[in-house]
Amino acid sequence: MPELRKDPVVGRWVIVSAERGRRPSAFGALTVPSEASMCPFCHGNESETPPEIIAHRPGESEPNEKGWSLRVFSNKYPALIVEGELAPEADGLYDRMHGVGAHEVIVDTPEHGIDIADMTIDEVKGFLSAFRERMIDLQRDIRFRYILIFRNYGRAAGASLEHSHSQLIATPIVPKRIAEKIEGAKRYYDYKDRCVYCDIIRQEIADSSRIVSDHDAFISYQPYASRFPFETCIIPKAHQSSFLELTDHDMTLFAESLRDSLRRLKLALNNPPYNFILCTRPVSDESHNHFHWHLEIIPRLTRVAGFEWGTGFYINPTKPEDAARFMRDVDVKNYQPAERKLQRKVVE
Amino acid sequence: MPELRKDPVVGRWVIVSAERGRRPSAFGALTVPSEASMCPFCHGNESETPPEIIAHRPGESEPNEKGWSLRVFSNKYPALIVEGELAPEADGLYDRMHGVGAHEVIVDTPEHGIDIADMTIDEVKGFLSAFRERMIDLQRDIRFRYILIFRNYGRAAGASLEHSHSQLIATPIVPKRIAEKIEGAKRYYDYKDRCVYCDIIRQEIADSSRIVSDHDAFISYQPYASRFPFETCIIPKAHQSSFLELTDHDMTLFAESLRDSLRRLKLALNNPPYNFILCTRPVSDESHNHFHWHLEIIPRLTRVAGFEWGTGFYINPTKPEDAARFMRDVDVKNYQPAERKLQRKVVE
Repeated sequence: MPELRKDPVVGRWVIVSAERGRRPSAFGALTVPSEASMCPFCHGNESETPPEIIAHRPGESEPNEKGWSLRVFSNKYPALIVEGELAPEADGLYDRMHGVGAHEVIVDTPEHGIDIADMTIDEVKGFLSAFRERMIDLQRDIRFRYILIFRNYGRAAGASLEHSHSQLIATPIVPKRIAEKIEGAKRYYDYKDRCVYCDIIRQEIADSSRIVSDHDAFISYQPYASRFPFETCIIPKAHQSSFLELTDHDMTLFAESLRDSLRRLKLALNNPPYNFILCTRPVSDESHNHFHWHLEIIPRLTRVAGFEWGTGFYINPTKPEDAARFMRDVDVKNYQPAERKLQRKVVE
Repeated sequence: MPELRKDPVVGRWVIVSAERGRRPSAFGALTVPSEASMCPFCHGNESETPPEIIAHRPGESEPNEKGWSLRVFSNKYPALIVEGELAPEADGLYDRMHGVGAHEVIVDTPEHGIDIADMTIDEVKGFLSAFRERMIDLQRDIRFRYILIFRNYGRAAGASLEHSHSQLIATPIVPKRIAEKIEGAKRYYDYKDRCVYCDIIRQEIADSSRIVSDHDAFISYQPYASRFPFETCIIPKAHQSSFLELTDHDMTLFAESLRDSLRRLKLALNNPPYNFILCTRPVSDESHNHFHWHLEIIPRLTRVAGFEWGTGFYINPTKPEDAARFMRDVDVKNYQPAERKLQRKVVE
């Protein structure tokens, strides 16, 4: 059973998951199947994964068989375990609880080698609606306080499998950096009676120098105090505290904005590894006023960031205004999506 | 002029340093001279660096010439600039100030390819006393609130040059994670009238399962809620708020403890890249009661940490107790330091 342990000084909870552990000599020795025939996330290899929780199957096909366009299943090596009670307890001056939570994988295409930049808008909407569906289901579980959705693309961004996928972790605590954002936004709201993100959006639109693109209900921009070069934020212009408030119409606009930003990053930075993180109102937070959901995209550029995670002190060698200009200037209109090979087979 | 910008939600200051910037296409394209003849930090290449601020020269030799055992100089590509006023100002709802500060490099050996694990205790004490000397000098400057000393060893840990060195950044703000530690320690002190680190030390010694080694006045241990596998903390057993309170006698013990921990990490993990960070009382903090200085060592093991820096949510696949046992069990007594080639030439 994994364990959640709390740092007694800064209050950060950490998952200690020895089940995922290995001998020290094994660090760095992992190998990753990169050929589609070996890949458990590929079409035809459904038996290699845990059974699916939900799937999108455009034609007639059976669960855990071919014929899907999207599959969600439990992570085979989960960081948290879904069964059991939290059982919080003291350990001397320390605090711990059982590592209870859900850890799921969302495989958003049956085809190996496709990323979001290469998908159709319907495919992007497909996985966004799968995020929504899983969040709605999991937030019924009163043990969970936050549902974290993130994506690691590329080995340097921590992806252990190359095949396009996102992950969901439902946790009995609110992750520290999300909690800091919510506290900061609340402090601002208590002082100003306005949402800090709404104020940011107004200023960014008026200023325009950090805007990457504008998709009607969404802007994509480079934050003023970006920690990383080309750090990109996509946010709804209208106040919405949770991703779950997104309407179907706006889901299309969000999908367009997300794909557009990822295409621009791919063109600007030669297909960089990246992480994205969906920052939304915690399940446990009832106020809709102060938080404003958004998606953070962090390209992982070689050799940027060294001691930063130890100090929380970041040196960004690229001005957000320069990054935004560069992203605006790429020729995204003529983006050529990767060629699709599987489409016919899936439909058959 | 680099700029300090503050995140309006979480209050984190970031250095935006376009002087260090490059075209986006250059990311990942940096090359590093690994041959000693090309290395600006090597003995004989003194003209390749900015002029030295201090140096240890065991024999008779001139500044910026051969014959040194340690040199400190300004970083050639500084993240912050030492001249000028802070000039804090608003930028709409954002906050910024000039990127004023000091950024120095401490080259602790003239010989390429030597790390701390291979040094004599006198050499380790040599660079520790250089840290102290620079801190004492820089804390006279009232613009600075924190003096951050850190080390990146290995490319994966962010070292841009292979030659052994540490860095110092004096900043007009307290880095966020240091500030969080200080606030957490203060909260604990206000509630309990005891230092949280003193309580941790008592519990760790009594429990012993996370202790790596005990060097009389210091323990090296794996923190209870370690974020990373083999994260190691070295801390004085007696309460000391600042590294500057270290006596000469204890400096020897600290040097032994540091070298011992780095030797154990090198043996346990096959010479891993690592960062270390000296966490000490800020210049601007007058209370000696609640903080307790320590040194954090974070080995950078491949493929650990992906989305973590985006969320502040860490998954540690190695139990600290397992890591501590492994570090205790390595054959550190028979550690063979790397062969020294330069020593004679330096003394000549």
